[in-house]
Amino acid sequence: MSTFGTHFRVTTYGESHCLSVGCIVDGCPPGMALTDADIQPQMTRRRPGQSAITTPRDEKDRVEIQSGTEFGITLGTPIGMRVMNENQRKQDYGNQTMDMYPRPSHADWTYLEKYGVKASSGGGRSSARETIGRVAAGAIAEKYLREAYGVEIVAFVTSIGNEFLFPPSPAHPTCATNPEYLKLIETIDRKTVDAFLPARCPNDECSKRMVKLVADYRDRQDSIGGTVTCVVRNCPSGLGEPCFDKLEATLAHAMLSIPATKGFEIGSGFGGCQVPGSVHNDPFIKAPAIPPGAIDHPAVPRPRLTTKTNNSGGIQGGISNGAPIYFTVAFKPPATIGQAQNTATYDEETGVLEAKGRHDPCVVPRAVPIVESMAALVIMDAVLAQQARTAARSLLPPLKGVVPVLGGSKEADGA
Amino acid sequence: MSTFGTHFRVTTYGESHCLSVGCIVDGCPPGMALTDADIQPQMTRRRPGQSAITTPRDEKDRVEIQSGTEFGITLGTPIGMRVMNENQRKQDYGNQTMDMYPRPSHADWTYLEKYGVKASSGGGRSSARETIGRVAAGAIAEKYLREAYGVEIVAFVTSIGNEFLFPPSPAHPTCATNPEYLKLIETIDRKTVDAFLPARCPNDECSKRMVKLVADYRDRQDSIGGTVTCVVRNCPSGLGEPCFDKLEATLAHAMLSIPATKGFEIGSGFGGCQVPGSVHNDPFIKAPAIPPGAIDHPAVPRPRLTTKTNNSGGIQGGISNGAPIYFTVAFKPPATIGQAQNTATYDEETGVLEAKGRHDPCVVPRAVPIVESMAALVIMDAVLAQQARTAARSLLPPLKGVVPVLGGSKEADGA
Amino acid sequence: MSTFGTHFRVTTYGESHCLSVGCIVDGCPPGMALTDADIQPQMTRRRPGQSAITTPRDEKDRVEIQSGTEFGITLGTPIGMRVMNENQRKQDYGNQTMDMYPRPSHADWTYLEKYGVKASSGGGRSSARETIGRVAAGAIAEKYLREAYGVEIVAFVTSIGNEFLFPPSPAHPTCATNPEYLKLIETIDRKTVDAFLPARCPNDECSKRMVKLVADYRDRQDSIGGTVTCVVRNCPSGLGEPCFDKLEATLAHAMLSIPATKGFEIGSGFGGCQVPGSVHNDPFIKAPAIPPGAIDHPAVPRPRLTTKTNNSGGIQGGISNGAPIYFTVAFKPPATIGQAQNTATYDEETGVLEAKGRHDPCVVPRAVPIVESMAALVIMDAVLAQQARTAARSLLPPLKGVVPVLGGSKEADGA
Amino acid sequence: MSTFGTHFRVTTYGESHCLSVGCIVDGCPPGMALTDADIQPQMTRRRPGQSAITTPRDEKDRVEIQSGTEFGITLGTPIGMRVMNENQRKQDYGNQTMDMYPRPSHADWTYLEKYGVKASSGGGRSSARETIGRVAAGAIAEKYLREAYGVEIVAFVTSIGNEFLFPPSPAHPTCATNPEYLKLIETIDRKTVDAFLPARCPNDECSKRMVKLVADYRDRQDSIGGTVTCVVRNCPSGLGEPCFDKLEATLAHAMLSIPATKGFEIGSGFGGCQVPGSVHNDPFIKAPAIPPGAIDHPAVPRPRLTTKTNNSGGIQGGISNGAPIYFTVAFKPPATIGQAQNTATYDEETGVLEAKGRHDPCVVPRAVPIVESMAALVIMDAVLAQQARTAARSLLPPLKGVVPVLGGSKEADGA
Repeated sequence: MSTFGTHFRVTTYGESHCLSVGCIVDGCPPGMALTDADIQPQMTRRRPGQSAITTPRDEKDRVEIQSGTEFGITLGTPIGMRVMNENQRKQDYGNQTMDMYPRPSHADWTYLEKYGVKASSGGGRSSARETIGRVAAGAIAEKYLREAYGVEIVAFVTSIGNEFLFPPSPAHPTCATNPEYLKLIETIDRKTVDAFLPARCPNDECSKRMVKLVADYRDRQDSIGGTVTCVVRNCPSGLGEPCFDKLEATLAHAMLSIPATKGFEIGSGFGGCQVPGSVHNDPFIKAPAIPPGAIDHPAVPRPRLTTKTNNSGGIQGGISNGAPIYFTVAFKPPATIGQAQNTATYDEETGVLEAKGRHDPCVVPRAVPIVESMAALVIMDAVLAQQARTAARSLLPPLKGVVPVLGGSKEADGA
Repeated sequence: MSTFGTHFRVTTYGESHCLSVGCIVDGCPPGMALTDADIQPQMTRRRPGQSAITTPRDEKDRVEIQSGTEFGITLGTPIGMRVMNENQRKQDYGNQTMDMYPRPSHADWTYLEKYGVKASSGGGRSSARETIGRVAAGAIAEKYLREAYGVEIVAFVTSIGNEFLFPPSPAHPTCATNPEYLKLIETIDRKTVDAFLPARCPNDECSKRMVKLVADYRDRQDSIGGTVTCVVRNCPSGLGEPCFDKLEATLAHAMLSIPATKGFEIGSGFGGCQVPGSVHNDPFIKAPAIPPGAIDHPAVPRPRLTTKTNNSGGIQGGISNGAPIYFTVAFKPPATIGQAQNTATYDEETGVLEAKGRHDPCVVPRAVPIVESMAALVIMDAVLAQQARTAARSLLPPLKGVVPVLGGSKEADGA
Repeated sequence: MSTFGTHFRVTTYGESHCLSVGCIVDGCPPGMALTDADIQPQMTRRRPGQSAITTPRDEKDRVEIQSGTEFGITLGTPIGMRVMNENQRKQDYGNQTMDMYPRPSHADWTYLEKYGVKASSGGGRSSARETIGRVAAGAIAEKYLREAYGVEIVAFVTSIGNEFLFPPSPAHPTCATNPEYLKLIETIDRKTVDAFLPARCPNDECSKRMVKLVADYRDRQDSIGGTVTCVVRNCPSGLGEPCFDKLEATLAHAMLSIPATKGFEIGSGFGGCQVPGSVHNDPFIKAPAIPPGAIDHPAVPRPRLTTKTNNSGGIQGGISNGAPIYFTVAFKPPATIGQAQNTATYDEETGVLEAKGRHDPCVVPRAVPIVESMAALVIMDAVLAQQARTAARSLLPPLKGVVPVLGGSKEADGA
Repeated sequence: MSTFGTHFRVTTYGESHCLSVGCIVDGCPPGMALTDADIQPQMTRRRPGQSAITTPRDEKDRVEIQSGTEFGITLGTPIGMRVMNENQRKQDYGNQTMDMYPRPSHADWTYLEKYGVKASSGGGRSSARETIGRVAAGAIAEKYLREAYGVEIVAFVTSIGNEFLFPPSPAHPTCATNPEYLKLIETIDRKTVDAFLPARCPNDECSKRMVKLVADYRDRQDSIGGTVTCVVRNCPSGLGEPCFDKLEATLAHAMLSIPATKGFEIGSGFGGCQVPGSVHNDPFIKAPAIPPGAIDHPAVPRPRLTTKTNNSGGIQGGISNGAPIYFTVAFKPPATIGQAQNTATYDEETGVLEAKGRHDPCVVPRAVPIVESMAALVIMDAVLAQQARTAARSLLPPLKGVVPVLGGSKEADGA
């Protein structure tokens, strides 16, 4: 189903060549200031055509709120949003070659297997254009999280091909154990990331190497993949629902639902398998009153403990502990390449496919706002679930006697 | 919520020190032969105490079906299952030290943050014992998939610490491009895996190195992580729901919901980011009538095309293409270690924690049946969703005229 | 949440005074012919302004499919639909009186209690305009059910005020025991119902009495309620999910979600409480090969048994038995009346409210297509659930031996 | 699916003749005192064998909590509960006659149509025994609602056959307009209801007439139906989710999911269709500081307005307004009767069925705790949904300027 989330629920529609794409956001808290202008910036960051290393199509992608607000305030009712499809150049897709061949490693063939019918653009809902609804919804979630908790969500490119911002090393099989990396996680912001356009990798030298690498692949009519790392700061503790909806599980779900993704790792990730428990464990320390850089939201619980290291990536036992949550997502090389490919037709005949159209040699930098948006949707849903629990508990009479019950966070309601 | 799946829905209950653990499986097709004996083997494979490298507790873990079957046949109604908790040795947990300290990188602290109350065993639902319900449910799913489609699900250990079955190399930054690896994926079975107990890594030399490595960590009262790779063969094409519930997304969700997991990768995975599109793309070829080793299920659609390579890991555009689905899961080193740890108490005092109790130095081999079970639950849910779609479509009148509609699979119903 | 259904899932958005209203339909089977023209007729039947006894606002209500189809064929992907809001006459709502008073028995006050913010039109999502998305979605469901099974869904007015099409009597405390009523249930069609506009009560004399009654209330600036009965014919057996989602339970849910409804009864209903079991029980008889008037869909199972009477209303144990499903829905008198009403302001001051604007004295006839649409959504969802089950079972090997398993329907697949 | 609720989610298992019946309750707030003793009383009220007019089977129905609590305190994790099946007397069901005939108006035939397999007891999950899990879960919900809000839920019998506690009359086509009825709604408690066992109709004379009526039907080996009315008092305002999950819609769903129900009406109900809007509308008045008989929960919002009359049944626009919520449920005569019935066998042969076994001639009094339990589940789920919304909103910065936003309830948090 094209629905994501339980409490903050997004339903999207639209493929690349129909009338419009859009979504309905249900469960947005009422009483929040919200206009198109809150949503457009991430839409624009997602838009192709921002540089030489992304596709030159000029999609306007103006979002238009249909419902759910009045006088710029959310009503608590479903928020419909729509973005028109323009500049579709159907002729790129409707040509005879494309009709004959399922494109290798694209969704043309599997969509046909699944639905038994075929859109003229192949696997229509697998198009990057489908992500518009996610980004629109994510911008709303993010606004709430920022206003209510001061949450900051920042993604950036950590590798393209074999160019790494933090290459794995024997000393640090996972960059989680590298203090320099943790420092970056704690301080990076979107403005800095965008200053490194088109690569969105916040390091001058590495960024240049990445741009050159992508240009090389583009010139060879080839493509290349990479990784995006995302951090969520000032996230309240207690998020994540045992046992199937652990916070890292819903984050992984969200990230692997983005087109072209191949992997997800939280905190120390795959490299963490090589680190012994005595190093990997994050010892507890007393938390500073207000974490550095955090806005004080007096009504929001702050954990009394934090961890000295953060190999856990801010999540323990599936539940956020208040430390920065960070994770990395792998993106494969785009499947549509200019090079001729030996493959088979729908009718099982062997032949050579030469793709037309304009396509990204590397989608990684453009994936940055999409990763941020999906992270916002996951955190928002988890926040509402946990707020419900805390609110429910706060109405119960206090427990008496000597049961082993201990208060965790300093809480505004004193419960 | 403690529920997984939409069409084949599992709800689990129980923590490590209560009366019993168990689950309810809803949505099992009626008319399938099923008794406790179908479920017990995976329960036993999951059980601790199978070798020197896993925990010596002797949990009996006898599953008992409560409902949903009669005369050994499923009725189509919910199947309740229960496993008693025995041999709990509460004194290991109820000691004074454990009451004072949240264990580093365990769920004690975050459960308290989440719920505001604390079970005597800390993060009770984060215990490995919670996985019993998953394995019981997975065994039912697996039986259906095997009977209906000949699906085979096999997991095995691919690394412990820095011992790799297929170490990454410049030639193969991802083992997906290594023909030897693909061969293993296509042929490995459970009997072979279990022949390599206690490591469950199907290579004699590597297995021995792993056993030694774990023993070293055990002797140092330390722990170590590793990876499990899982393959699903004979899986029908067309599984996975665009756009949020892509098959790799629900697999990632399932895997990251297993305790102690830190990462997931499908097909070429993280290494695939370093491979150019021209290599990474999987060209189409005509499919053999029956894939080698596959049971012929005449009623089951077989795709007419398959791919020459399988960097996609059997999933394209979020939908299965009929090729083997394979993925790898990262497990961190167990958090409970015998070494003394400098940390803080619940009351924010610094101190030294020395954990008691008997715990695994490495959970990776024991995770094998859990990974298989979660894979079975995901595939089963996707199969039922797709069967519903295909059945719905098959009742519509045939489409007339020149619409660009092409038949994918050879289908039994001729639609 | 603004979502209905599990397998055929409708999500709606929009209130009366925003930019547009609409919905997303997810789960529509692929390969079905579908254009705006399939949807518009029910939209038009729902539209106000069709006669003197409904409100004279001329809403155009042109539906426009945004996605999910190509060349007039469903793709299986989400179908977005949109209807612009026009002719809103905000001044009727924005006046000072309406701002001061919550309208009695309207949703103004409860929406404010729920959301803490207030749309200028009061309880925006409780407006009849919200039902547009339901009717659009229902038209799609209905088309599938008709094409796949020959399902016919017809609703009609059975009472307005104390004018009854079949008044309860000592002989028939429930009209379910009245053969004349059952005959009507088995034969009524939409064309006949609309021939009795504006009352939509298929009896000349009763219809005239109803029209006069409504005119009387209108002239007194008052309003009146009534009941709508709906029948679903040629519905396959086996629909409805024990135990919480019995077919009558989801029908009741659907009907009570329509604005202004106060009651629901299935089959013999409330009157059935007065009939002894010996009369109320429906004895089984051998089913005719093809029920009278039914289209033969050779692929569709037909039960071998049917019932002689139909007090059950086509549902037994929560599951459809293949007989006509019929139920009745109660609608209260519209809350907005022209008469002055003594009530209180938002600020707790007593005062007199005189409503402006043009409003229906009786919504019952206009509710007819809404009831049909919600019935279609319920049946469609249940059909997909049951198709999934049947398809899943059909792939299992046949059961051997002497287990007490009996075949029910003649099924096309021979299972 | 056998699951009810979104935030407070109950999943049940078990049929009448398997090992046990039970449920898992997920989403119970942590930190609430809870033991078996909180649940058993309603289990016992539900139990058959309480009087001459209910079935003499002596089911013990001892509930046993499996998980989710420790030291008598809820942990916030899933609560497993189990009740053994005893005294099953399989021979009543396994006889040859029962194997040959689907019982008229029972679920035997439709279960076979649905599942294609047949439990030896016919429609196993349609048995009244299935309601045990509902009652166990409802008792937990009720405890929370009582402790957090002082909610009182009381059901009682309002008619059996044609014996009515408040017979409809020209003056009061709906008893909602009858002040005597409203008085009863506001004051009735469970102790009073049980004082009128076996009829559970709180009127001495009417109760006696009902007992006699049921005895007459029992003596004729026949059966009879009736209605149960239920009131929920001290329910917070703002409950119910527009537009599909209006509070009356989820109540209707819950009630029609109880075996043997045929109808549901909220507030004025079907009779309300005959009352003009000018009478039916509930004018607003200033609310008393604390409603009579209500416990003061200082943290719980109290609406500033209430209604003078209560034809709405405490719900307007699908949302609770703080007034007592009341509704009536119709129960058909039990399908299993001692009289011989002319019907057909599974093999389409006509014949005569004489049922054996001991069965209720009237289930209405015994349905009282089941109706209460389902009401508790609905209200609990709605409460958690609304608490989540209110909590989410309370963290937003206050809205500035002249937007038309008005405060509803006096709220503890001052938002």
